[in-house]
Amino acid sequence: MTAEHEDRLRRVRERMAARGIDTLLVSDPANMHYLTGYDGWSFYTPQGVVVGADGEVLLFTRHMDAAGARMTTSLDDGQILGFPDSYVQQRDRHPLEWVAAELGRRGATGPTIAVEMDAYYFSPRAYDALRASLPDARFVDAEELVNWVRAVKSPAEVEHMRTAGRIVERSMAAGIDAIAPGVRQCDAVAAIYDATVRGVDGTGGDYPAIVPMLPTGPGTATPHLTWTDAPFRSGEATILELAGCHRRYHCPLARTVFLGRPPRRLTETAAATREGLEAALAAVRPGARCEDLEAAWRRSIAAHGLEKESRIGYSVGLGYPPDWGEHTMSLRPGDTTELEPGMTFHMIVGMWMDGWGFELSETFHVTAGGAECLTGFPRELVVKE
Amino acid sequence: MTAEHEDRLRRVRERMAARGIDTLLVSDPANMHYLTGYDGWSFYTPQGVVVGADGEVLLFTRHMDAAGARMTTSLDDGQILGFPDSYVQQRDRHPLEWVAAELGRRGATGPTIAVEMDAYYFSPRAYDALRASLPDARFVDAEELVNWVRAVKSPAEVEHMRTAGRIVERSMAAGIDAIAPGVRQCDAVAAIYDATVRGVDGTGGDYPAIVPMLPTGPGTATPHLTWTDAPFRSGEATILELAGCHRRYHCPLARTVFLGRPPRRLTETAAATREGLEAALAAVRPGARCEDLEAAWRRSIAAHGLEKESRIGYSVGLGYPPDWGEHTMSLRPGDTTELEPGMTFHMIVGMWMDGWGFELSETFHVTAGGAECLTGFPRELVVKE
Repeated sequence: MTAEHEDRLRRVRERMAARGIDTLLVSDPANMHYLTGYDGWSFYTPQGVVVGADGEVLLFTRHMDAAGARMTTSLDDGQILGFPDSYVQQRDRHPLEWVAAELGRRGATGPTIAVEMDAYYFSPRAYDALRASLPDARFVDAEELVNWVRAVKSPAEVEHMRTAGRIVERSMAAGIDAIAPGVRQCDAVAAIYDATVRGVDGTGGDYPAIVPMLPTGPGTATPHLTWTDAPFRSGEATILELAGCHRRYHCPLARTVFLGRPPRRLTETAAATREGLEAALAAVRPGARCEDLEAAWRRSIAAHGLEKESRIGYSVGLGYPPDWGEHTMSLRPGDTTELEPGMTFHMIVGMWMDGWGFELSETFHVTAGGAECLTGFPRELVVKE
Repeated sequence: MTAEHEDRLRRVRERMAARGIDTLLVSDPANMHYLTGYDGWSFYTPQGVVVGADGEVLLFTRHMDAAGARMTTSLDDGQILGFPDSYVQQRDRHPLEWVAAELGRRGATGPTIAVEMDAYYFSPRAYDALRASLPDARFVDAEELVNWVRAVKSPAEVEHMRTAGRIVERSMAAGIDAIAPGVRQCDAVAAIYDATVRGVDGTGGDYPAIVPMLPTGPGTATPHLTWTDAPFRSGEATILELAGCHRRYHCPLARTVFLGRPPRRLTETAAATREGLEAALAAVRPGARCEDLEAAWRRSIAAHGLEKESRIGYSVGLGYPPDWGEHTMSLRPGDTTELEPGMTFHMIVGMWMDGWGFELSETFHVTAGGAECLTGFPRELVVKE
């Protein structure tokens, strides 16, 4: 286990002890990766990392994936439990029953077990199977315990995100370059993937946790539409929300392109939105609260008669599908978390109107001196005549 | 609502009635798409489709995604509920509380509510919030009710899968063509994505539910590793497990490539595995049971001294990350489901050995005459000298 992994585990155990948690069951693939390095597209069947108050961590996964765990982690064979394939997607049994029996046999669980109650790949059926198999344990919600430990990045993690930032600059440029009247949306996405996967400066790119999102025309009124094979049309806008990904660390970036001469409502919204984004970035400093950034944005756009209901950003970093966000801090009213050096956020100001829209974003790193943006991409509405 | 959507809803309600379910809450994005056409990368926050015994279906999602629901479905505005952004990823409230209150206000839930207890995007925390907000309801496990309705495809659905099959033939050819000693894995993946996304015959490709899986060298001992930027090496095998995707319908395909002169254990395993796959395909006919196909495979490979613990296939079709499998039928001992015309399976025979491996697969459609394979890709181990 590397020194960085040992330090992460120490910080997780400190939080466990403070909350009276004897055993932590980690299901989020990003949290599993953070603690052990495990990497593979195996999260579609149950898997997890089990952290006790001391001793070794255990990892469980489907038997066929145990070899992948041996290859991508420094765990010993004895720390990797592979459940039999006969437990996969059956009506009369669940893999967590097998796992619970194995943990019991090893005496690996304490009286209070915390589970990630809102992780994507820990289902209510899995939870029921675990509780039925460990009837004497007390179960509590881990409440994103590991996610919060991830909130402050090490210099090595920030460096991964800087690499991801260089990748997404290329992906965004490739996408914008490809978008033109008559070009199919899927062909622009092919250009984006090419840059995203080939990477930059000799370093390859990983798959981002979200595919390229590319609402176009009336679709720009909403954020999460993906591509079709219809052509881009003159007189329409397209929003690109992409990320570069390096060693599972993300740097997202959103920009908006208009084909032809943009309407005034769009150019004015783009200018006001940029001003608001920059006001929020200028508010970044250690000790500022998450909600302070949103307030700076809100004041700035209000001067232009604009408002926005939804949050303007979230903590970002390590991730697996379906999300590169970390589910901890949000830039919105009521989030009083204080910024610390090493935190990283995706600040995204999406303005979704009635039938049209505009998006702009920056991924930034909190430093003693303020916000370090991880990309240097122009912030203007891109106009292609 | 199209005739096909109406028919799907009718079949879902038949099963609901047979099981005494008044209200079905659908969380699986593939099931949501199947019933309404909804399509967007919004499943990282809670969403669902609510089906009552009669009347209109309702769809709930985050407020910013409601416009996407209007654009991709034929639901009326009144059938789409957008929860406020202030409910997203908060410690003191959950979107399902808002949804439950809204359903209650509309009188939209009956006494017995079925939920998808093993769907990826329905978390234990969501379930707890729902139960606390609807204390008088009885909750039962929907047990993949909609997934089972999806098991038999309409001619239109099979046609989508045939298109996906033509796409994956191109993606596989592009990947095999790119793999060579010294070429980086990520560059082969870029070639695969290019074919997958640009599509075939003027029809573009969607994002498959799983990224290209590409274990290479010692990594071929396990199935679900993705790529790095390390180069392919002479004297090593690479497994490609890919899918084409068209309108969210998948056609997966796996093949194995060897660079140089393959060892005898690999060529012999490849030949025996192909023979076993073809024996299983020959057993396909309406009325045959899922386990019969596996038995045909098992008998065939046993003659070569081989055995395999894990299932050799599963029902496939519509899907969103993280899985293109439908979580219903598996080709394995004990699955006595009888094949019907219109069912579609991915039969994948992965042989994961100690430090090496081999994979081969076919996606097939059950017809009156037997298995119709949806791709026509050669089944040999690909040897590139």
